[in-house]
Amino acid sequence: MNHKNIVERSLISKKGDLKYLGMKNGELYECIITTENPDKTSNAAPIGVLCKDPEHVILYLYDGTHTLENIKRSNFFVVNLTKNSLIFTKTTLSDISEDNFKYYKEYPYIEEADAFFMVKTEKIKDITKNNSLGSANMSIITGKVKNVVKIKEFNQPLNRGIYAVIESLIHYTRMNLADKNTQISYWGRIKEMNRVVQKVGSKEDKLSMKEIITKIKSEYNNLE
Amino acid sequence: MNHKNIVERSLISKKGDLKYLGMKNGELYECIITTENPDKTSNAAPIGVLCKDPEHVILYLYDGTHTLENIKRSNFFVVNLTKNSLIFTKTTLSDISEDNFKYYKEYPYIEEADAFFMVKTEKIKDITKNNSLGSANMSIITGKVKNVVKIKEFNQPLNRGIYAVIESLIHYTRMNLADKNTQISYWGRIKEMNRVVQKVGSKEDKLSMKEIITKIKSEYNNLE
Repeated sequence: MNHKNIVERSLISKKGDLKYLGMKNGELYECIITTENPDKTSNAAPIGVLCKDPEHVILYLYDGTHTLENIKRSNFFVVNLTKNSLIFTKTTLSDISEDNFKYYKEYPYIEEADAFFMVKTEKIKDITKNNSLGSANMSIITGKVKNVVKIKEFNQPLNRGIYAVIESLIHYTRMNLADKNTQISYWGRIKEMNRVVQKVGSKEDKLSMKEIITKIKSEYNNLE
Repeated sequence: MNHKNIVERSLISKKGDLKYLGMKNGELYECIITTENPDKTSNAAPIGVLCKDPEHVILYLYDGTHTLENIKRSNFFVVNLTKNSLIFTKTTLSDISEDNFKYYKEYPYIEEADAFFMVKTEKIKDITKNNSLGSANMSIITGKVKNVVKIKEFNQPLNRGIYAVIESLIHYTRMNLADKNTQISYWGRIKEMNRVVQKVGSKEDKLSMKEIITKIKSEYNNLE
């Protein structure tokens, strides 16, 4: 198709190995997933990607999203890594235009990404998830990592774990100056950050949250 | 002093240039500052470091902290960069033991850091800061960056900007499923994240928050 740019020769591609991108087993990273729409245009959406092992990722997708429909139809998706917050913002608030995509062997990626990799769907499991707002249908996608490509000087993938720890530490240090109601509010926030860390973080992040929570429980009463 | 380890020969040192560590003018990074106590032991504390330009940093320190007292006495400090959340946790919750430090030309740094740089104090300005909890005495320290040292394969310094944007986007996407009270709580959270971004973030982060806030104001009424 003539609207699809040829990938630049300078791109370095490696066979599926997420260690090459600094991704670690069991951690969940903030990424942008690009897929192909039925009309052959491209779709982009910000989605958490769990690194199962260096060759496999897992996605949890709600029913009714373009990303899920596209993956179920075409059996592939591309995971884009970026540190540019504007790309996350634009893909969340609206659809981005076709100008923002490039193509690597027919697979759409985001031109401004730092790195990306192609994934072939291996397994799709449909589940119903119950939460405080009711129940929702979801699919759990397991995919096999194919080519991994660095575009720019690539640093590391975006993991929220350490930021949740730092935010918890900031709240902890403010607790001793705060009144009881504010302490309870900070404590609620720290428990929320703990949930984030248990979901996305590293071993160090999880151990950090355990130490912070133990410390707070030893210093403050009646926070629950 | 024989307890001070000799710095490893493999360390690469560069004359003051924060660009070498990926630090950008006007951004504030989460770091660990190490200083020398009066008894020649070392002190470590997690502190935000503002990159004024590639050769200068600015710190805002409350009166009464060991870090400030040590800097006022010795006129130097060391800025350590790390992505290990346990180092932030341990230095916040308690003092770390002398075993955790190494020395580079008499300057203490944290052995497990990814990189560090020495700073010589150029200017100290004492101010009184008023906030919701009353007034507090602070010092604004401006320092000149001396040797910059990478220890491990170094990625990039820790900036909370993009995480504040991502957290705002997560809250935004949940708002349309939430009741009015929860929407107001999410909106309060987004405004707090905007304050973080204005203080620490990049141009892209600031523009992202502007777009998110404009979008929410156009879609929701009576949130203030």
